[in-house]
Order: sequence, then structure tokens, then C-alpha cells
Amino acid sequence: MAKIPVGILGATGMVGQNYISLLKNHPWFEITYLAASPRSAGKSYKDATAGRWHLRRSSDAALDTIIVEDANDISRAAAAAKAGTLTFVFSALEMEKADVLKLEESYAAAGIPVVSNASANRWTPDVPMLIAEVNPGHTAVIPFQQKARGWDKGFIAVKPNCSLQSYMTPLWALIQAGYQIKRMIVTTMQAVSGAGYPGVPSLDVIDNVVPYIGGEEEKSEQEPLKILGRLEDGIIQSADEPCISAHCNRVPVIDGHTATISMEFGEKKPSIEQITTIWRQFRAVPQELGLPFAPEQPIIVREEANRPQPGKDRDACKAMAVSVGRVRPCPVFDIRFVGLSHNTVRGAAGGGILNAELLKAQGFLR
Amino acid sequence: MAKIPVGILGATGMVGQNYISLLKNHPWFEITYLAASPRSAGKSYKDATAGRWHLRRSSDAALDTIIVEDANDISRAAAAAKAGTLTFVFSALEMEKADVLKLEESYAAAGIPVVSNASANRWTPDVPMLIAEVNPGHTAVIPFQQKARGWDKGFIAVKPNCSLQSYMTPLWALIQAGYQIKRMIVTTMQAVSGAGYPGVPSLDVIDNVVPYIGGEEEKSEQEPLKILGRLEDGIIQSADEPCISAHCNRVPVIDGHTATISMEFGEKKPSIEQITTIWRQFRAVPQELGLPFAPEQPIIVREEANRPQPGKDRDACKAMAVSVGRVRPCPVFDIRFVGLSHNTVRGAAGGGILNAELLKAQGFLR
Amino acid sequence: MAKIPVGILGATGMVGQNYISLLKNHPWFEITYLAASPRSAGKSYKDATAGRWHLRRSSDAALDTIIVEDANDISRAAAAAKAGTLTFVFSALEMEKADVLKLEESYAAAGIPVVSNASANRWTPDVPMLIAEVNPGHTAVIPFQQKARGWDKGFIAVKPNCSLQSYMTPLWALIQAGYQIKRMIVTTMQAVSGAGYPGVPSLDVIDNVVPYIGGEEEKSEQEPLKILGRLEDGIIQSADEPCISAHCNRVPVIDGHTATISMEFGEKKPSIEQITTIWRQFRAVPQELGLPFAPEQPIIVREEANRPQPGKDRDACKAMAVSVGRVRPCPVFDIRFVGLSHNTVRGAAGGGILNAELLKAQGFLR
Amino acid sequence: MAKIPVGILGATGMVGQNYISLLKNHPWFEITYLAASPRSAGKSYKDATAGRWHLRRSSDAALDTIIVEDANDISRAAAAAKAGTLTFVFSALEMEKADVLKLEESYAAAGIPVVSNASANRWTPDVPMLIAEVNPGHTAVIPFQQKARGWDKGFIAVKPNCSLQSYMTPLWALIQAGYQIKRMIVTTMQAVSGAGYPGVPSLDVIDNVVPYIGGEEEKSEQEPLKILGRLEDGIIQSADEPCISAHCNRVPVIDGHTATISMEFGEKKPSIEQITTIWRQFRAVPQELGLPFAPEQPIIVREEANRPQPGKDRDACKAMAVSVGRVRPCPVFDIRFVGLSHNTVRGAAGGGILNAELLKAQGFLR
Repeated sequence: MAKIPVGILGATGMVGQNYISLLKNHPWFEITYLAASPRSAGKSYKDATAGRWHLRRSSDAALDTIIVEDANDISRAAAAAKAGTLTFVFSALEMEKADVLKLEESYAAAGIPVVSNASANRWTPDVPMLIAEVNPGHTAVIPFQQKARGWDKGFIAVKPNCSLQSYMTPLWALIQAGYQIKRMIVTTMQAVSGAGYPGVPSLDVIDNVVPYIGGEEEKSEQEPLKILGRLEDGIIQSADEPCISAHCNRVPVIDGHTATISMEFGEKKPSIEQITTIWRQFRAVPQELGLPFAPEQPIIVREEANRPQPGKDRDACKAMAVSVGRVRPCPVFDIRFVGLSHNTVRGAAGGGILNAELLKAQGFLR
Repeated sequence: MAKIPVGILGATGMVGQNYISLLKNHPWFEITYLAASPRSAGKSYKDATAGRWHLRRSSDAALDTIIVEDANDISRAAAAAKAGTLTFVFSALEMEKADVLKLEESYAAAGIPVVSNASANRWTPDVPMLIAEVNPGHTAVIPFQQKARGWDKGFIAVKPNCSLQSYMTPLWALIQAGYQIKRMIVTTMQAVSGAGYPGVPSLDVIDNVVPYIGGEEEKSEQEPLKILGRLEDGIIQSADEPCISAHCNRVPVIDGHTATISMEFGEKKPSIEQITTIWRQFRAVPQELGLPFAPEQPIIVREEANRPQPGKDRDACKAMAVSVGRVRPCPVFDIRFVGLSHNTVRGAAGGGILNAELLKAQGFLR
Repeated sequence: MAKIPVGILGATGMVGQNYISLLKNHPWFEITYLAASPRSAGKSYKDATAGRWHLRRSSDAALDTIIVEDANDISRAAAAAKAGTLTFVFSALEMEKADVLKLEESYAAAGIPVVSNASANRWTPDVPMLIAEVNPGHTAVIPFQQKARGWDKGFIAVKPNCSLQSYMTPLWALIQAGYQIKRMIVTTMQAVSGAGYPGVPSLDVIDNVVPYIGGEEEKSEQEPLKILGRLEDGIIQSADEPCISAHCNRVPVIDGHTATISMEFGEKKPSIEQITTIWRQFRAVPQELGLPFAPEQPIIVREEANRPQPGKDRDACKAMAVSVGRVRPCPVFDIRFVGLSHNTVRGAAGGGILNAELLKAQGFLR
Repeated sequence: MAKIPVGILGATGMVGQNYISLLKNHPWFEITYLAASPRSAGKSYKDATAGRWHLRRSSDAALDTIIVEDANDISRAAAAAKAGTLTFVFSALEMEKADVLKLEESYAAAGIPVVSNASANRWTPDVPMLIAEVNPGHTAVIPFQQKARGWDKGFIAVKPNCSLQSYMTPLWALIQAGYQIKRMIVTTMQAVSGAGYPGVPSLDVIDNVVPYIGGEEEKSEQEPLKILGRLEDGIIQSADEPCISAHCNRVPVIDGHTATISMEFGEKKPSIEQITTIWRQFRAVPQELGLPFAPEQPIIVREEANRPQPGKDRDACKAMAVSVGRVRPCPVFDIRFVGLSHNTVRGAAGGGILNAELLKAQGFLR
């Protein structure tokens, strides 16, 4: 099978670099189009990122000579789409929200589906906010979205914030198993890579913790409700619960967001054994479909007293699994545990790729 | 006034070194007696700590030539007490709990009051567990303790674990102001110095978080109840609330424990303004008595969005204040905030010194 | 004695903040004038630094209400100088080199001496580059400078780069004692605070070393030659040796530059005992004059096998001493050792203050 | 081809864990025998390492049920060797030098070749100290070693210290190309994993540098001379040069030793272009033999101004390559550069595996 030609918007930024690095040798997708800010446009990708490759993973030498396009110039992408050399784009745009909104819409309007990592469209009611294992069915809103906008092939699908990936899939596995979760208090200890580059100054985080990340607590509390929502009247209606309180902190860790979680269940309360069994046995649509980026084991339950830890567990299942541990009774609520996921892979580019694989398998990318 | 001669048990360990460093030029106390394990006994303090001074603050050169005694040999301390060259001891013993229990009792039985940093006697019912600003009246249990054991001048007083210092005084200030606190969920991000030396291996904590500290969650949940308890029948009866759930984590920070706290009040709920006013105006017995180690401002309320931070706030009021910030509504409970205190000063040796100052002012050390 | 009124140019930047913090309660100098970029001009100092106070040491509340001036507007400073409320300024300007050059000249031309931390004027031949213990006599170039420019009271004096402070004073002590030093190979491990704020991104330095700091090696190699130079024909003529090779690295340390040094002497070679004796006994003009910021012991020789270390030794003598250790034979050259100094105190604002104290004592500031 | 059955002595320690992790799916070798201290003996490998798996890479689940033997009990290994289920052992013993010496000899005497990571036998004159790309011919001393001891199949081969791997191969490539290197001054910035577990306390290395590692400078200076030596009279005679001065430092890095190097050549001095060409084109016996762990590119020359960095370059060629950069003139000697290698892979277990592959290819393991 010929690979699907894909583009990266924002290809020179941190998230864009992650897409480049992770898509190397992808079995379905092949990068054919790179776009970034006017500053990079016209340069080869190698030149555009010279001295500005910020990842600890390496780039893909095969892309070195691709000439970077101006992401604001949709005509080039449209021409590529027409020529059959561009099927869809990953959006890793790092601009003002209003600009991202407009630009992602323009690509979609030009017939180019946008699988986005940006936050701009997360609360657009007819745009699905996807975690492939949790709400794969939310893609059913896409035809409504297309119809409402008069788009044919183009559409926009987004992924949620990286901070909630450490608890969202475990949460969903329990809900799906029939346990109502009423309230949760969460504290996150987030890696510096989540802030992009240059991001967090070293003076702020060596031998320090910063107990605040702008906008992050709101995202961590609200986005789960849309993810748990249902399709109604052509839009995603948010769920009413769980009520979440999030305390978000920055810690001196390169990659991997850790969260401590206390949960209050509804009347039916699972035992610790039931919870760990549900998590261990949890498989979802990406696993059933055998999507290339789907972690074989979406939720890994660690038994050691002191795990999961970002240093040791962030790379589990190619950094796409969520690791949990310390499942134990909570004196205040019912159960508490520790969750961990890799923020730039599972929580960003890797999650975006998995969403695109899901969309392809569902027939939305053609 | 002549200074009171004091001793340090466990003088060569990390907590002992903190006592040495902090007592330099103390206006009331003068170190005259140093005791440690048999390995150090017979050496000068300088030799006993050669290549083993682990603090970033310096030692006290005036003590270099003191010969370290064997902490197990009470006869030497008893002789010093009899000779008037030793009034009381700070216990910074790092031994098995049973050995500390026995040894601290032996010193007290020999007429030497023990102001302890060790955890062994925290749950002895007639031993007060003191935070000088919170429960200074608990020292009233000491006469009962002395009577029950047949001790004359000797007694034991302890301080609680370092992990709860970041929220205990703020908590107490609100309770004292008439607000019932029913439930709290706390997550701590604790410094490596809390584990002593060698303590946490660097391989475990560079670019990592360890979401577990043995025994720490139990202490963080239970000790507040004894501190909030009342004297009854010659012992301290623990309070029934608040019900606390603590998630304790180790982070790559040298000094300073940070905590995120969500609180549920009783029927009477203070506003954010009321809370910050109560905290700002809070003064207690140590401040009224003008104790040398009492922080002028016991609770410092930071207004910046991203404070307190251990790197910037741990040293406030000579590292004896608790800094709080981000006081805001909690979607799940009523109020949430961030608390911070210096674990080896306020939470260990400095807190012990303040306790001794309180005991002196109250007439227990003579 | 009334304190001398001083100003800070670049008062809101990192170096400016260090001046603010260090000058608190200075016995001779009192800050009366703060100037920064147009963005800050017109705001109170508190507002201008709100959320932008980057030091771990605190600010000086007494300066909170001073209105920040535009550093480009010399008329205000000139008026203050005329009114007797401004005697000289510390320059902590963070601008393009050409702009700093011009601005510092303008202040001097307006009769306001400039004691600068900036690098712009370091190679101006008639501007002294001062380390108060090493070349205090270089201030004799100032009258030539004033005469050549037609300046009356104003002049410019600068300090060298922070990277060489760890070895420059030890080097000088040996030269002064009669030992020629022909060649040196130096490797520095420099703290992130040396790069200012935001400076080094945390992604670049957590669990990493960056073996390059732009321009730093050249400064570390060349500036010592001017410092060791002599006044001739109204300018400072650089010395010819030692020939220095510097390898400069950024390491995950907040404050304190560490250097490893191998030295080759001329024919007369001191023994290790002679070297350590020279260093221990070294006292210079700042000590003789009793300048407030002069470290009592300019060079501290550590005897422990594993010192000096930035974490433990950077604050020695209020962070103004240089600590050295591991003085031992070098298999390739003659002697090798480790040097350490606090880069933002001794190597920046503290060094600038000491230079101003020297200039005051020498009668240049009136 | 059936895989060769191998054992690990010291299997539960840090280096042992690295062997376990790296040998997973090795094409030639299969672990069949694990031995450690009496404390671990009799337990399954999973139980013996429960809560004590210190690597960030995972273990090999296939070995979980192997029962750990007592490394001191050679009879079990001898029986396995006789039964054909053990061909040779990797020694990762962490004991006193004298004990390692004796134990490694006992295994060899029992007919079991020992490929050692321990330092005990490095200076045994008839034991080769191998870097497979540098001195593969030194294995020719093995028959002399066997004859002198009366051993048949058994022998001992060792690898050098991890600290010199960053410069030894680049050095050799130049020597082999005909350039004499007379003197070198080296400063290393070494990762904490080099100290094993628990190794460096976090209190010593967060926000700090420790400018001393016991014994490391001697090894870094002397071992290269044996590696560059020649076989004569049945022993390895050390070379006379280069004369090396090493300054060894511990920095807050998990993996990867960085070194800055200044080199003085003999009369014939290569240009920078010649040097980088020699390094880029360097291939050696492991590459020619296609050994599984041989890095395709043994020396990677980075062109960026700020590379190599441990965080970004340690994993190059599966962490088996040496990365170099910043090749530039040295004002004191001729040329200076930065070298980097992964200390626990290239510098320890990975280097040991490559040595075993070389020995296998040369017919010494049968």
C-alpha cells in the first residue's frame, strides 16, 4: 500500500519536531509537506532547524532537503492536495489562538483535514476532542461539522491537553465498567517539555517547583467533560461529571507528567482488585484495530511501592501507555492512585498520530 | 544572663549538623555537649565530621575541638548535668525506633530534658508533639509525664514530621478563628534533604519524581490530629478531624517542602479575603513571647500567581515562616492553596530550637 | 556621614536586581535613582518588577515606590546629579554593545561616573577593567581618560567577565609573589545565572551539559591580559602572558562558576606548600582599606579532597571570596587546582560594588 | 546457529542490570546463568531485583524466573560449563579488589573465560585491557596468559574505565593516522550513573558540581598507556605517551561522560580538516567484522557550535558511538575538542559485550 502523504504545520517548533521524529518509518504516513512561519519559509528543513533542534531524539535525515513552506499560504497546500501529494495535515501551530482558529479552518475549507495538537479548536462544539481509547466515537460529529461549514473532505479534529492524559484513560476505563466517578482532586507534577522551547527558564526550575501553569488547571478540569460528552444535535455536549479540582505544578523533569489522584465514586464502589483488573484488561478501539501507534497495553499497572516514576515509566509501550500505581484507599474519598504519561508523545505528537490513524481506519482520511 | 548549656544527641548526622549550624550565636543556648554513635565517640567534632559535613551552610568553628561523647553512655551526660554544664539535650538520634525510645527515656530519667526531633516518642500519649505557634499549651502534659514516670527535672517533648509544617499552621489559624475544617486532600512535593544523608540517590531523582516516601503519608495524616488534640486525663487526646488524605512525593529540590491543599470547611465558610486576612494577622505565643527563633510573620501570604516556590520562599523569616499562596476556590471542596516551609529549619532543627525556647519561657528548662 | 546617592542603569534586569538586593543597608551607598528600558519607565520599581523578580534573594522594599526612569534619557540623571541626589551610577545595561558604549559615554560626559558591569567598554584602552584585589592601581588611567574626552567628574570603569573570577585572583597572588605563569589550560563549569533571565532554557540543561557559551572562551583568555597589563601612555597596555586556553561549559547549577586549572610556571616553580601559603596569606588593597564588600579572606584554600563545590562554597565571605582546592601536581604542566567563585555576586554586582568602594576610597567619586 | 550461553557475575548490581537489559535479543549470546552475592542467591532474578531495579531501561522478563546463584560458589558455574550450558561469563562484580581478583581467576581456572567490567585485573600484565576499536590485537596476549597460569579454555579480558572512552578512540584514530600525540590536558564532566547505586547522594549533586572522583584521574591518565601498549615477552608493555593530566568532576547528569581535551601533537601537526576527516572515516576491526554491538560510525563529528551534549548525543548508534565536536585550535597546545560517550553502555556493559563479540570472532570463546 502506498503511504498517505501528510504535512506538518508548525514543523519547526517543538511539537512539530516531535511529529518529525515520531513519524520516521511510520507504516501508513509519509511526510511530504512541511510548513512553518515566514521566517523559516523557503529554507530547507535542515537549515530551518539548524541550531534549533531541541529534542533529545534525533530528526529524520530524509526530510532535511524538503523546502519549508509558509504555513499562512494555503494555496501551496491546496495545490499539493489537488495534486494528490498531500492528504491531510498535523497542526502543531504555535500562534495566537485567533490565528490558529482561522488558519485551521482555512486548511479544512481547502479540503485538507486538520488533525490538531493546538488548543484553539478544543471548545468548538462540532470539533471532536479525541483520545483514541476513550471517545473514538466522537468522530461521528465530523459529518455534521462538514455539513455545517459546507466542507467536503476537510475537517478539524483535535486532541486534549497533555496534563489530563495521566488520568483520563484510567478514569474512562472505570466509567465504562459501570462505576460512576463523582469527584476527583488531582495534583499534577509536569515536565518542562510541556512548555515548549525555550519554555521554562532553568533559573526557575533547577532546585525548585513552580506551583502554577497558566490556564492548565482550567484545561485539566474542563476538557475531560467534553471528552466524556455525547454527540447530540450535531455537536458534542459535555458531561456533567466528574467534578475535578486540579492543582498544576512544574517540576524539574524533562519528559513525563505525573499526577496524584483521589476519586469519589457513586454508590457502586469498586474494590482495589476490581480497579486494577479493569485497568489491566482495558483494551479499546485502537487496540482492536491494531493501529500502529496504539500501545499494546493502554494502562500499565505497576505493583512496586514507588512507581510509576517519569524517569522509569514514561517510555512504556513506546511512550504511548499510561502507567498507574499506588492504587490504595483514600481516607477522604474512596480510592487514590498515581498516574503518569509521556507528555510530548502520548500527550502531544504521539496522541495526534494515533488520532490520525483512528481517523484513517474510520474512513475519514482519503 | 549566662547562656543555658545544651547538648546534641546525634550531633554528627544531618539533623545534628543543622542544630550545630543554627545554634551558632544563639542568644539563650550554648552548645557544651555533643554525643553521637560509638564510631564518632572520642574524636573532636571537627574530626568526627571531616569529609562528612553535608550541609550547604557552614559548621561552627567554635565547636571543632569539643570531644564527641558516646550517645549511649548516659553517665557522662548525667555527670555534666550534675556539674551544671548541661541543662537539656536536643535529640537528633538516627537509630532504630526502639533504641531511640529507650535512650530518650534514659536521658529524661537522668534528669535531662529531651527536646526531640526523632519520631520515636511522637505517639507516646503523655509526650507533647509541639508546633510552638499551634499547640504551645500541650506542654501542660509534661508534669503528668514526669509524675507518671517518677521523673523530677527530665521530660520528653517532640516535634512532628516535616511534611505537615507547610499546612499545619495555616490550618490552625483558621480553626482558631472559628472555622471548622472537615476534610483535606494534600499532595506534597518534598525536598531530598528530608531524607537525610546519603538519603535519596541522585539516580532516583535527577529528571524524576518518586511518588512515594515510606511512612510519610501516615504521619502527614495522623500527626495533625494529635497536635490539634486536647489534654485530658494526663495525656493528649487526639482530635477527630480534619480527615486528611496525603499524597507524598519526592522531587529534585534540595530544601523546602511544597504542598497543594484542598479544604472542606464546616457550615461556616470563610471567604478568600477572610482567610488571607486571618493568615496575615496570625500571631501566636512564640511571637508574643518574642522567642529568638520565632518568625516575625508566621504565615506569609504571597500574592504573585506563581508563588510560593521552594527556591524563592524557603528562607523567608530565616526559614522559619510558612509561605502560602494561590488561595482560590476549589471546584470540589471549598478552598485550595499552596503551602511551603523549609523542611530542615522550620520542619526540623529550627522547629526544635523554637520548641526549646518555648519550654524555657514556660519554665520547663531550668 | 551621609550616604552617597547612587543610581542603577538597567535596574529591572537580572544584574540590576542583584545590585538592588546587595546594596540593601550598604554603609556608604544609597540607591536614589533607578533607570531601565522605556517599557519600565514611569512605573514604580515594584510594578516594574512585578512577576519579574528572578532572584532567590529578596528585593529591597524601601525601593518599591521609586519611579523608574528611562535609561536613555540622560537629562533626568544629569538634573539629579546637579541637584546632588545622584553621585554615580552602576551600569547593568542589557542592550546591544554599540548602544551601551554610547550610553555609558553619555552619562560620563554628563558628569556622572559609570561603574559598569557591561562588557561594552572592557576593551576601551583608557577604561580600567578592575578586580579590586588585582589591579587597583589601574584606576590611575582615569585622569587620562577624563582628559582625553574632556570630561570633568565623569568617567567609566568596568569589571571583567564572571568566568575568570575563579582563577584570576589566585593567579595574581602567585605572580605578585614572584612566580611567572607562562601557560594555563582552564575548563569552566558555569552556572545558569550567568546567562541572565530567561537565559538558559531548562530543556537544555536538566540532565545535560552544554559545552559552549558564545564569546565566553575569548573573554576568559583575553581579559586576564588587560587586567595584568600596565598603564603606559595614558592607556592600559595588556600583558603578554599567561597564554590561556579556556573551555567553557554550562552545567545545571544555579550560582557559582567552577574551574579546573593546569598551570605552567616559569623557571622558578613554587611548591604546593608555597602556593597554599601565598593564597592563604594574600591580602590586597580592598582588605587594607577595609572596604565594606571586601572579603576578609580573598582566597580560601579548602583542604578537603572534594572541595570547593558551588553548592557549599559559593557563599563564602558573603559570596565575595574565591575558594580553591585540590592543589596538586599536574603530570603535564606544573600544578593544577580547582577554583570557584559566585558569578552573580563576586563575578557581577558584588564585584561592581567593590570596585565602586575602591574608587570612592581613592577619591574618584565625590 | 545456536546462541552461546553466557553468565553474569554480579547480575543484580547496576552494571549487571545493564548487561541484562542490553543483552535482550542479542543475536549471538543468551543469558543462562546469573550469579550475585549470597544475599541474592537462591532467589529468582525477579525477586532478587524487586524494588532494586535502578535502570531507566527495563529488565528482560524472560530472565525473571532464573534462580540467582552465589557468585562465590564456582562449582555451580563449573558444572554448567561442563554441561555445555555456560560458555563464558561477564564479570560485573562489585566487591573489594582482592576478592574480585581471586574470584575472576577462579572462574578462569575452572575453564570459564571472564570478560570483565571490574577494575581489579586491569593492571595484571598479561590481561588485555580492550577497547575493541583501539587495541583488538591485544587479545594475542591471552595464550600467554593461559600458558603462564596453566589454564586451558579460561582466561581474563577486561575493559578500561568509563572516563576515558570519550577521548580514547578519537586519540587512537589520530595516532593510527600517523600523528604523534605528546601531551593532553583533559577535564571530564561525568554522569552520576558512573558511581553505581546508590552512588552519588542527591544532596551532593543537585545544583552542584563535585570536582573529585576517587581514583578516577589516575585511571584516566594511566589506562590509555596500557591500551596503547604493545605485546612483548608475553605481557602488554605500556606506551610512554601521551602524557595526560585529567581533572575529573561529577555533574548532575544521569548518563553520558563529557570531556574537554587540549592536545599537543609531535612535529607533524594535522589540520582541523584532516582531523575531522580522519575521525569521520575511522573504521576498525569491530566494524570490519560486523560485530552486532559495533557502532556503524565509531566517531561521530558534530558540526553544531554547542554539541556534543550528553542529553542529545549519548544515545548515538545505540549509545556505542563516541561523539566529538568543537574541534578548534588551542591557544596553548595545538587542537582542542569536546568528546562524549555513554558511560554505562559504551563505557561499561555495552563495551564489555563488544569485547566478548570480538573475542568470539577471534575464536577465543568456544
